[in-house]
Amino acid sequence: MLKQMTILGPGLLGASLALAMKERGLCRRVHTWSRRQETRKRAAQMNWCDAVFDEAPQACLGSDLVVICTPVETISPLLAKIAPHLPSDALVTDVGSTKSRICHEARAIDVPFIGSHPMAGSERTGMEHARADLFEAAACILTPLENADKAQIKRLRSLWESVGMRVVTCTPEGHDEIVAHISHLPHLIASILCSYLTTRDDAWKQLAGGGLRDTTRVAAGDPTLWQQILESNQDEVLHAIEGFEKELNSFKRALQNKDTPALTAQLTKGKQFRDSL
Amino acid sequence: MLKQMTILGPGLLGASLALAMKERGLCRRVHTWSRRQETRKRAAQMNWCDAVFDEAPQACLGSDLVVICTPVETISPLLAKIAPHLPSDALVTDVGSTKSRICHEARAIDVPFIGSHPMAGSERTGMEHARADLFEAAACILTPLENADKAQIKRLRSLWESVGMRVVTCTPEGHDEIVAHISHLPHLIASILCSYLTTRDDAWKQLAGGGLRDTTRVAAGDPTLWQQILESNQDEVLHAIEGFEKELNSFKRALQNKDTPALTAQLTKGKQFRDSL
Repeated sequence: MLKQMTILGPGLLGASLALAMKERGLCRRVHTWSRRQETRKRAAQMNWCDAVFDEAPQACLGSDLVVICTPVETISPLLAKIAPHLPSDALVTDVGSTKSRICHEARAIDVPFIGSHPMAGSERTGMEHARADLFEAAACILTPLENADKAQIKRLRSLWESVGMRVVTCTPEGHDEIVAHISHLPHLIASILCSYLTTRDDAWKQLAGGGLRDTTRVAAGDPTLWQQILESNQDEVLHAIEGFEKELNSFKRALQNKDTPALTAQLTKGKQFRDSL
Repeated sequence: MLKQMTILGPGLLGASLALAMKERGLCRRVHTWSRRQETRKRAAQMNWCDAVFDEAPQACLGSDLVVICTPVETISPLLAKIAPHLPSDALVTDVGSTKSRICHEARAIDVPFIGSHPMAGSERTGMEHARADLFEAAACILTPLENADKAQIKRLRSLWESVGMRVVTCTPEGHDEIVAHISHLPHLIASILCSYLTTRDDAWKQLAGGGLRDTTRVAAGDPTLWQQILESNQDEVLHAIEGFEKELNSFKRALQNKDTPALTAQLTKGKQFRDSL
C-alpha cells in the first residue's frame, strides 16, 4: 500500500488511477494539483482526492509516487519544477502518449523518472468521466532507459498491474514507433476522414450508419491534446502515414484496374488482422 | 398488411426485415429462396419463414413484395429470372449498397423495381444475427428513376418506415456518390489500415487500445461482398479516395512544417464533424 500518491493534472487518466487505487485500498492519501483553478476546485470535491495544492512542488512533498497526467508538452517543464522537492525514495512517472523526448529530457534533469503509457482512455476527457475500471485488461507500456533502477521498474510494473493492466517494457523509441502505428495513425485517419467530409454536402451525415460513427469515434478527441501528441511524435507519425499511403495507393490501383483478385486479397488481409485483434 | 413477401437471399438484412415485419404483424407469409442448399435448410428452421423454395421464381409466385438481398453483382441476373413470374401488382426492391448500375439494368428488364438501401447492418452477417430492431432509427435511401410509379414509391416508403427507418429519396447516381463517401470510404480506409498493419510487427496488436478496435471494426466485413460493392461503385469510390488523399496530404504537410495552427484547425474541423454525427 502506498502512503501517498500525487496526481499532477487530474483528467480522465489521473482521476481514474486515483479512483482505482483508492477503491482497491492500494493508496492511503491522494494529493493533486492542476494548473487551472477551476479544475482544482472540482478535484477538491472528488471522493478520491485528499488534498489539492495551488503549486505542483507542494503537491509532491512526502509522496511515494508522482504521476504526471498533463499534456505531453508540459511534462518536462513540470519534472524540472518538482525535481528539487521530491522525497529521496520517490518515483515519478507519466501517462504521456509519446516517450522519446520526455524520457531523454527527464534524464537530463536527473529525476527518478520512468515513463508509462497506459493504453486506456476515451474521447471523453475530464475527471467527471473517471472510472475505477478504466485500466482493466488494457496494455501499459513502460519505457525505462538503459540505466534505470531495476527495483523502480518493478515498483512501476506493480502499480499498473495492481489496477488490472497487462504491462510490457520497451525502449522510448520503440514505444513511439509502435504507438505511431496502432494509436496515432488510426486517430489521424479518423480525423482526416471527418475533416474531408466537412467539405462535402452537410446533409449526407444524416444518412450515416454505424460504420462511419465507429470508424470516426476517436476524432472527437481534444484537438490541442492530439496536435501536441502528433507533433511530439512527428518522425514516426510521418513514417506511418507514408506506409498507409502506399497501401492506399496499391488499393486504388487495383480498383482502377478492376484487379478483383488483388482487391479481395487486400480486403481479406485486413479482415484477418481485424479478426485477430 | 402484406399478404405475402419474398426474401431472396436471406442474410442479416433479409432475415431482419422478415423478423421485423412478422413481429409487428405487417406480413402474413414470408417465402424465401437462397442459392445455397445449406442456407435454405437453415431458413426453413427460422420463425419468420413460412416456405423455402429451391428456385427464385417459384419463391416469388403470388407475392405482393419481393426483396432481393443477395450480393450486388447477382441482383440484375435475379431480376431477369423472376420478372416473368411476378404478379401484375407486385413490387420488387433490393438492399444493395450501390444503385446506379442495378436501377438502370432493372429498367432495361422492364420489371416493377425501385431500389432501396437501408443504411443498417453489421460486420456480423448471416440470418443467425438477425434482429427485429436492426432498422430502427437508421436511414433508408430510395432511388426511384424519373418514370417510377408514385404509388409504388409510396408503398416502398411505407415498408421501410413501418420497420422504424427514416426514408429519403435520391437519384441512383446521387446515392452512389453519397455512399462512396459516408460508407465505402470509411470501410476501405479501415481495411487498408488493417492490411497495412499486417506488414508491421505482429506483437504490436497486443498493445492496441479501444481506438484501433473501433476505427477498424468494419474491416471485419466479408471481403467478397465488399470487393463487389467497391467495384460496382468504382468511379465514385475513386473520387472519394482522391478527396481523402488530398486532405491527408495537407495534414502531412502541416506536420512536416510544424505548422501547429494548420494541424489544430484540421483536427478541430474533424472533431466538429464527429460531434455533429
